[in-house]
Amino acid sequence: MSFKPYNSAMLALGQAPSVIRETFEYGNRRAAEIGRENVFDFSLGNPSVPAPDSVDESIRRLLSDTDSVLLHGYTSAVGAEPTRKAIADDINARYSAGISAADIYMTCGAAASLTVTLNAILCDGDECMTFAPFFPEYRVFVEATGAKFTPVPADTQNFQMNLDAFAELVSPATKAIIINTPNNPTGVIFTEENLQKFCDLLRQKEAEYGHPIYLLADEPYRELVYDDTASVPYLTNLYDDTFVCYSFSKSLSLPGERIGYIVVSPKMQENRALYAAVCGAGRALGFVCAPSLMQRVVAENVGKTADLSVYRKNRDLLYNALTSYGYRCIHPDGAFYLFVEALEADANAFCQKAREFELLLVPSDSFGCEGFLRIAYCVTTEMIERSLPAFKKLAEAYGVHGEA
Amino acid sequence: MSFKPYNSAMLALGQAPSVIRETFEYGNRRAAEIGRENVFDFSLGNPSVPAPDSVDESIRRLLSDTDSVLLHGYTSAVGAEPTRKAIADDINARYSAGISAADIYMTCGAAASLTVTLNAILCDGDECMTFAPFFPEYRVFVEATGAKFTPVPADTQNFQMNLDAFAELVSPATKAIIINTPNNPTGVIFTEENLQKFCDLLRQKEAEYGHPIYLLADEPYRELVYDDTASVPYLTNLYDDTFVCYSFSKSLSLPGERIGYIVVSPKMQENRALYAAVCGAGRALGFVCAPSLMQRVVAENVGKTADLSVYRKNRDLLYNALTSYGYRCIHPDGAFYLFVEALEADANAFCQKAREFELLLVPSDSFGCEGFLRIAYCVTTEMIERSLPAFKKLAEAYGVHGEA
Repeated sequence: MSFKPYNSAMLALGQAPSVIRETFEYGNRRAAEIGRENVFDFSLGNPSVPAPDSVDESIRRLLSDTDSVLLHGYTSAVGAEPTRKAIADDINARYSAGISAADIYMTCGAAASLTVTLNAILCDGDECMTFAPFFPEYRVFVEATGAKFTPVPADTQNFQMNLDAFAELVSPATKAIIINTPNNPTGVIFTEENLQKFCDLLRQKEAEYGHPIYLLADEPYRELVYDDTASVPYLTNLYDDTFVCYSFSKSLSLPGERIGYIVVSPKMQENRALYAAVCGAGRALGFVCAPSLMQRVVAENVGKTADLSVYRKNRDLLYNALTSYGYRCIHPDGAFYLFVEALEADANAFCQKAREFELLLVPSDSFGCEGFLRIAYCVTTEMIERSLPAFKKLAEAYGVHGEA
Repeated sequence: MSFKPYNSAMLALGQAPSVIRETFEYGNRRAAEIGRENVFDFSLGNPSVPAPDSVDESIRRLLSDTDSVLLHGYTSAVGAEPTRKAIADDINARYSAGISAADIYMTCGAAASLTVTLNAILCDGDECMTFAPFFPEYRVFVEATGAKFTPVPADTQNFQMNLDAFAELVSPATKAIIINTPNNPTGVIFTEENLQKFCDLLRQKEAEYGHPIYLLADEPYRELVYDDTASVPYLTNLYDDTFVCYSFSKSLSLPGERIGYIVVSPKMQENRALYAAVCGAGRALGFVCAPSLMQRVVAENVGKTADLSVYRKNRDLLYNALTSYGYRCIHPDGAFYLFVEALEADANAFCQKAREFELLLVPSDSFGCEGFLRIAYCVTTEMIERSLPAFKKLAEAYGVHGEA
């Protein structure tokens, strides 16, 4: 036995370079050199709008009218009952999903919703799939359970789920599939038709393999939808074996407060055992009791959102300008990302070139899909306006000239 | 392959009966039957004193003077630099420990401090030890990493670390040892002599085995010390290969807010690699960025505590009364627990008997030590006063009569 003073997999994760973080840090150094106003940083998917006033009002009122020992004290391990009830009522009012408080487990945010669910269901030898392009931490979360992570190649025509490729890759080892709509990094919303076909295929494979295949709906962007025609169906209504992994990070602009939840669909077979496994995974990972003040705050703010209209304005401004300059990009209906084709085959090289114009963009390789770049438009509209000449010059540097 | 629709270990954890929780729930049912004032519930180790006023003042001021996007936004994954610096400065001022902000990783509370550290260092086949009696979740956290959990039998004479038993059990597979002083469930503080001998033994075993053995100091009760003569040395000053796992739950009475930290001792060999492994484990478990508002709050409140004097008063009242009735109990210098000998061999049977007198006590078996019961005296002094005749009658029911 060769003794390792640490867990090597954890060391590798801790030391792994992150292109998003590296880009963000380059931006900070560059801002120090030439001034923050001259750097156009589109690297981070952080909400740029404040939390709704009602959030801070809830905090102030709770501090005044709630006993400190209760307010800052432990709730039940699964979360406070009134919070879980308020969330279930809101989901049912909007989607008639038949969820009860007993189906909800409060978590410390989106990452915890995913890791707790994955640890509850996956064993060594199991496989968890997702559709490219995907949030890079999915791989980290799945592999940490000992399961195999299998991404399905992207359909780069429309960035819907690539069901033909999925049908070829799915196997009896497949136990779970993570889907993310509205999507990071494309901003695409999966159509109801695409979702229906996918769920039909899953049911067919469940019957063929004789065991459940769980759908994990990672939904931090559910409320960030900009087209009135686009609908985001509630997944438990389409497919019984569904876990919904939610976070209030984007909807209430509270990413740092680490508050979210898991819904274990009541339609799932062995729903109570799976809910218990979620509780067990929460214990084993060290997540019992989500932050208590924030549990009370979200109970009072379910169904509300920050003012998300700036994201729609940003999307329209940036999408229209970039396509007019000759860039090609899928039209995004939600989240706060544009996924643009690089103007050379190597997206990393393209993003390096973009830095010459002070544009900080994230190449798509780490999302499991080469040749694109992600533009996070959760920034000020004014920064986007100032950045447009740089995007135009970057296209021209590649000999691309648009309409104008 | 037999398909399991869940991870069986997680299901077992989620369904495992907890004697503490069961006792607490029995208390709620009983209170509904005979009135809350007639039930003496000593089952839960939850702070019973409010957070210091300065905590709520910090929250109010931060809401007023900090931009919402910053206040509720992500910090660095390892925690905000000013918070880590404030904590390091406080530790250094009190213990001259030479800690810097770069040695600190902010966590979502005590459980996360432990799970992140354990996952950073342990691999399959490694062993992690602790001293009985111990907080039952240690076993859960260690076994979830795939490592073996080995408790060292208690020294029931004085509840110091049983070093003779440790020396017999330690082996080349031993990679980590969790210690907890002031201790849950005994309230005992390990003496400086006991700690010194333990650290000497660890160094000797490190040399013998040719690899580090890490000390994990689980310290939620560090500030809860009632005797001016009792000191709790800072472990990084006694032993180089130390991680300190801290939480503000008890010191600031914020158990529900999930805020704590890990110190990776700067004196540790490969300190930077181990810090990186901690970062990697945080990613893999889904803990990046501790709750942001609370990070700012603790930065302004390091070194402060809730008014802990009621715990000392409760300890004196209960210890003096119980020993005068003929109970035998180690004198606790810290935390908020009394660890009392059961008056029959089976502590579970004794605690059932105690319920006839409306006393809700926790038998010691789940702490890895039979024949005792834990009394959590983080309750109102007035409840203790009302409970004393019941303790007296319970002793008398066993034919035990005290001095009075």
